[in-house]
Amino acid sequence: MSARIRLALVGMGKIAHDQHLPAIAGNDDIELVATVSRHGEPVGGLPFFPNVEALAASGVAVDAVALCTPPQVRRAIAQFAIEQGWHVFLEKPPGATLAEVTALRDAATTRGVSLFASWHSRYADGVEPARSWLSGREVKRATITWREDVRVWHPGQDWIWEPGGFGVFDPGINALSIATRILPRPFFVETAELDVPSNRAAPIAARVAFRDTAGSAIAMDLDFRQEGPQHWDIEVETDAGTLLLAKGGSVLTIDGKEAVAHDAELHGEYPGLYRRFAEIVRAGESDVDVAPLRLVADAFLRGRHIAVEPFVE
Amino acid sequence: MSARIRLALVGMGKIAHDQHLPAIAGNDDIELVATVSRHGEPVGGLPFFPNVEALAASGVAVDAVALCTPPQVRRAIAQFAIEQGWHVFLEKPPGATLAEVTALRDAATTRGVSLFASWHSRYADGVEPARSWLSGREVKRATITWREDVRVWHPGQDWIWEPGGFGVFDPGINALSIATRILPRPFFVETAELDVPSNRAAPIAARVAFRDTAGSAIAMDLDFRQEGPQHWDIEVETDAGTLLLAKGGSVLTIDGKEAVAHDAELHGEYPGLYRRFAEIVRAGESDVDVAPLRLVADAFLRGRHIAVEPFVE
Repeated sequence: MSARIRLALVGMGKIAHDQHLPAIAGNDDIELVATVSRHGEPVGGLPFFPNVEALAASGVAVDAVALCTPPQVRRAIAQFAIEQGWHVFLEKPPGATLAEVTALRDAATTRGVSLFASWHSRYADGVEPARSWLSGREVKRATITWREDVRVWHPGQDWIWEPGGFGVFDPGINALSIATRILPRPFFVETAELDVPSNRAAPIAARVAFRDTAGSAIAMDLDFRQEGPQHWDIEVETDAGTLLLAKGGSVLTIDGKEAVAHDAELHGEYPGLYRRFAEIVRAGESDVDVAPLRLVADAFLRGRHIAVEPFVE
Repeated sequence: MSARIRLALVGMGKIAHDQHLPAIAGNDDIELVATVSRHGEPVGGLPFFPNVEALAASGVAVDAVALCTPPQVRRAIAQFAIEQGWHVFLEKPPGATLAEVTALRDAATTRGVSLFASWHSRYADGVEPARSWLSGREVKRATITWREDVRVWHPGQDWIWEPGGFGVFDPGINALSIATRILPRPFFVETAELDVPSNRAAPIAARVAFRDTAGSAIAMDLDFRQEGPQHWDIEVETDAGTLLLAKGGSVLTIDGKEAVAHDAELHGEYPGLYRRFAEIVRAGESDVDVAPLRLVADAFLRGRHIAVEPFVE
């Protein structure tokens, strides 16, 4: 490997442009060497390819790829990349199913490359302080409220409504990536109601009741139909006061007093992810936590579907 | 622990009577000491209790429990049992969700007891010979056909139609427990269609398309509406001929020639399970393979629901 990690970015959609390109540009340890997208898209004068097979055949030297395609097509690309001996950064969710992620992890281990199942929300400013504060406390109850306007945040993303796109669980899995990191005890789906528009395959809203190993209730309310103020909040009631992690994990307050504030200048999620990716590549390790995806699968497994009115974007 | 493993049987439904009681009676290493069921049910003059809390309070000495309750209530009972220091045998499926099984496994490890996620179909006579024969072969294609009459095999089992009861995946998971054991490569859900009766929460039929890491297709056809001949077959086409594992894993033929025949006198599934349970208890180990449940969760996660006509038993 060269001094810098030579990385190709695959799947040049909204998240690649909004988050990956700036984060890569700001990381001295990583060098963008190519992009891959079906329609071909030159970025900063770099070589670009329609698929990873063409990239591999091109002779461009690559150490790693970051996959930002929709989850439904990610497994085959990741498997090909691992076979090339490339390290792989997976956008969230790491796959459209759990079994494929487990197999990718095993394949990466066998091939001796690093696999990173990234969960960007875990790198929000308030998450690690919230985890520390909760680690010694008794959780009595928690409420996860994740309500965002799908027309604002997911314009034209038809894949999100297809099977494997997860619908409102696409943002909901961000909430679960935080909750599984900060809550001190494991928790499980007890009941789930999934509101599925009659013209779509994936839920537009969901209510999930979890319970942890000590019997405390965790309620999750997801809704893509939210207009006006948007909510990405986790509230945890404990024996020592109430923790509120708001704005997607970036603002932490304890009993109403601000503990960590989001600094827009140093927005840390994707820069944090790329620092972590470089770290595991250097260390020859993988970082694959399937817990958030497992809870989503459990919600579908145990969920009751409720047909609701069609959704037209 | 006494010389024999003192076992209490919990959840005295159809499977406990049909399979567990005879298998326990035939195992010299295991001694039935009590039964537990909501309605109370004396078996062979043994003490019986309405719940595991009453069993624990009774003073009856217990080393292990086998849980045959519906999956939706199994986690809390298993967690209680592990806290008592009892070894735990879980009927299939090991839980109503994946996360709970992972947490039980961790809890059992911490407490130093054995946890057994049993998959009875893996102990059918043809399964290990099929696994051996396939291990050196190239699988080109596989077909899983599991069609049984729900009225015959699951009379009055309302829990099977509730969320977490899995509907036709309750028998279907048996097929997957075999397939994940005998097929040489991991495989993943690519598409799934779930036929859900309009008056029920769980599918009555399903078609799942899997693909393995080498790109071979595995098709699964599940149907609870089968009348007349019943089918529990897995057919695997390889570079060296076609393997057929029929009758739920008990009859193995290779290119039409019978390789292993089912012997009704020595029907081996549950006796095999209890031998294995005694073995892991003696060795201080657990045996928890979640692969079959993970594939079912993936089928729900990635499945398209199709409303079909009401099912009335």
